[in-house]
Amino acid sequence: MSNMQSTIDYARTKHMDYLNDLIDFTSIPSISTLPKNKNDLRRAAEWLSDKLCNLDMDKVEVISTGGNPIVYGEYLKNQGEPTVLIYGHYDVQPADPIDEWKTPPFEPTVLAENVYGRGVSDMKAQMVALLAALDALQNYGGGVLVNLKFLLEGEEEIGSPHLKDFILANKKRLSCDFSLNHDAGILAPDLPSIVYSLRGMAYFELWVYGPQSDLHSGFFGGVIHNPAQVISDLISGMHDSSGRVTLPGFYDKVIPLSNDERETLARIPYDEETHRKQAVSPPAFYGEVGYTNIERIGARPTLEINGLLSGFTGMGSKTVIPSKAMAKISMRLVADQDPLEVGQQLKAYLEQNAPSTIQWELNLHHYGYPVTMKRETPYIHAAAGAMKTVFGVYPVFRRDGATVPVVSLLKKELGVETVMMGFQLPDDGIHGPNEKQHLPTFYRGIESYIHLFNNLVA
Amino acid sequence: MSNMQSTIDYARTKHMDYLNDLIDFTSIPSISTLPKNKNDLRRAAEWLSDKLCNLDMDKVEVISTGGNPIVYGEYLKNQGEPTVLIYGHYDVQPADPIDEWKTPPFEPTVLAENVYGRGVSDMKAQMVALLAALDALQNYGGGVLVNLKFLLEGEEEIGSPHLKDFILANKKRLSCDFSLNHDAGILAPDLPSIVYSLRGMAYFELWVYGPQSDLHSGFFGGVIHNPAQVISDLISGMHDSSGRVTLPGFYDKVIPLSNDERETLARIPYDEETHRKQAVSPPAFYGEVGYTNIERIGARPTLEINGLLSGFTGMGSKTVIPSKAMAKISMRLVADQDPLEVGQQLKAYLEQNAPSTIQWELNLHHYGYPVTMKRETPYIHAAAGAMKTVFGVYPVFRRDGATVPVVSLLKKELGVETVMMGFQLPDDGIHGPNEKQHLPTFYRGIESYIHLFNNLVA
Repeated sequence: MSNMQSTIDYARTKHMDYLNDLIDFTSIPSISTLPKNKNDLRRAAEWLSDKLCNLDMDKVEVISTGGNPIVYGEYLKNQGEPTVLIYGHYDVQPADPIDEWKTPPFEPTVLAENVYGRGVSDMKAQMVALLAALDALQNYGGGVLVNLKFLLEGEEEIGSPHLKDFILANKKRLSCDFSLNHDAGILAPDLPSIVYSLRGMAYFELWVYGPQSDLHSGFFGGVIHNPAQVISDLISGMHDSSGRVTLPGFYDKVIPLSNDERETLARIPYDEETHRKQAVSPPAFYGEVGYTNIERIGARPTLEINGLLSGFTGMGSKTVIPSKAMAKISMRLVADQDPLEVGQQLKAYLEQNAPSTIQWELNLHHYGYPVTMKRETPYIHAAAGAMKTVFGVYPVFRRDGATVPVVSLLKKELGVETVMMGFQLPDDGIHGPNEKQHLPTFYRGIESYIHLFNNLVA
Repeated sequence: MSNMQSTIDYARTKHMDYLNDLIDFTSIPSISTLPKNKNDLRRAAEWLSDKLCNLDMDKVEVISTGGNPIVYGEYLKNQGEPTVLIYGHYDVQPADPIDEWKTPPFEPTVLAENVYGRGVSDMKAQMVALLAALDALQNYGGGVLVNLKFLLEGEEEIGSPHLKDFILANKKRLSCDFSLNHDAGILAPDLPSIVYSLRGMAYFELWVYGPQSDLHSGFFGGVIHNPAQVISDLISGMHDSSGRVTLPGFYDKVIPLSNDERETLARIPYDEETHRKQAVSPPAFYGEVGYTNIERIGARPTLEINGLLSGFTGMGSKTVIPSKAMAKISMRLVADQDPLEVGQQLKAYLEQNAPSTIQWELNLHHYGYPVTMKRETPYIHAAAGAMKTVFGVYPVFRRDGATVPVVSLLKKELGVETVMMGFQLPDDGIHGPNEKQHLPTFYRGIESYIHLFNNLVA
């Protein structure tokens, strides 16, 4: 039996241990956007640090930042072999809306082939799978024959406010041949895929202010420009009837898809009804006229309303004219769009369209740049080959609609390409209620990482 | 000294007692829209019943309804004299937004010339002023020389769901010469006024449903019709650029103002800057093109957004596509507009304009009909004369923008006219935070009621 096969066999005997690790890690409510969870973030960082220490690292550090700590690890025992910078994040999104969870979000629960919990797919299962692969290689394989550096942060879900400074201050320490980002997914349990394009992000909060207090609509209805109406008008004007964003200059730096790429994307297996189910059954799809759903998500920018709040929203009725209204507005960006320029475009739109009967305020929450990666590198080939071995089919190369700002950051600051390789599924419900990880895919993820590390030195 | 003057003098010596009554009554959180305040409603009803019992009524009853009890009282000792049906309500609006109160809403606090508390102006001070007038007449005047019937309900702020049935079941018991509604106000401390027109009301809750759960905007942004965007589009389309409501047929039963009435309304003292301050300083006024502010509030219908809710509205950011969005929408109606017909018009608008990419649901919360009253009755003259005596100037006759459904109900079911006589001020902030009652106006209110009851038999 080959070394490789015995490593795989060993990993299979340990499925229950790895699942228990996953449940243990996911039970930590490491929600980075809520100040009250500060200590849970540190607990999650220490959980990872303990795991890395058990993996014979040369060095493991939990490094304080202005926010949540960065877990840094080094394993540099294989001079002359490639060095992989493994990026991950241990923080998770809030669990709202709590009422819609069928199991408690921080009591990970196995039901049939899935484990449910906030952050399980995004991205604790991916981290545990990679640690499991290293565990198997070290304990029953030929050992880990590449060099590893770990860069694990706790602020990805809030836009990584301290990561850039850390990278700039540690350029030499982080030097590597390529980065492996395991905050990624595949298209279906039997359809592995590798992402070569990620959208950027710019997230804003818009406030519209009218009268200084809520007013009685009987006494003042008719003479006040209602802030809830004004914010609706402003939001409504941000799209035209073709589903295109109307901010001035919004599409100037969007590179049109070539016919070649459109044809390649059109060959990705796509079933609209399956997709509709993954999108938890909206009555129908809707998007920019003239593009396929795959193009709309991967290659076209969007503007979304993430939240709306104004006036009385409790049970029953209250006849107020609200004094203010709030909208959370974010854009997903592509190609050469710049999130800061897009912020200026939103501001220009508001300056042109907001009436003088109200006041408004726009705040930028966080942002990340879009990025497109090379598809022809030895590292991509090693990853694709590993997936082929485990899944039996060569992965599809595709664009992803999500934002992983670290990928553009590492390209810009360290000059390194990233390989996106993770084992989320499109219907995992990340960021929403009832987030899950598909366990057979988690186990295949472990085996894929074992093959990847092997392929890099083969 | 006349009997009348000694009654007035007596009432003045008792200001502190009447203020203490007001504070005591206002400290009961009788919020009718919140189920948890059920017992407080009963406490408020019993507080009133006790006060009436002390006033030598022939009969006082706290009568159960399907909801909060009705306090009914009778004083029929003066055969041949007019019988006044006194309508009031002891329930109040919720105190939201709690954060914006400078003093606790249910710990009534006197600051300078005002007392602050939820429901103090709407309408507990008006009820206490009327009870105080009766107390003064009985204890130091010639007694109460008219006949009185009290109809005091606890569900006015939620649309009086049980009042109509009660009135229909008690038509004979409630028979009277006219109704006195003291849920009313004057234009300024030195500018008494009597309202002869009230707007109607129709209050709705609109839900827009998209995907069954919130979705990750990276994975699905571009292919989902965002419910927050759809509700904004729908709301935005409900007004045109002239500030007119676009629901089909909305203005069909609005009677145009005659030139005579426009001229009369134009003579009401109006200072835009004072009005702007009463409206807690919006940046500027805004309303239907072609009408004055007085006309917009008194004689024109409106459609207001009272509340908006969708997606993530907490601190920080969450990149979701919301699964649903909610708007509370109410209309103030005038002339012959029918709230149920208006509901059909809103439904027709939604049927015509809601896209097929979402689902929607519209619920009617409560409604009331608009009403216009006669200005030439002996009862109006008695009230106007009382105000002239106390304030030194004859009251202005005006239209009010608020809704008092009982007025149209009593007209329709008992055939009686209503005199609106109360002592709220436009800047009392009713339904909003820091609601107040102006105390000098409260005391003048007591004296005005004393003169009214006297004038009715003079």
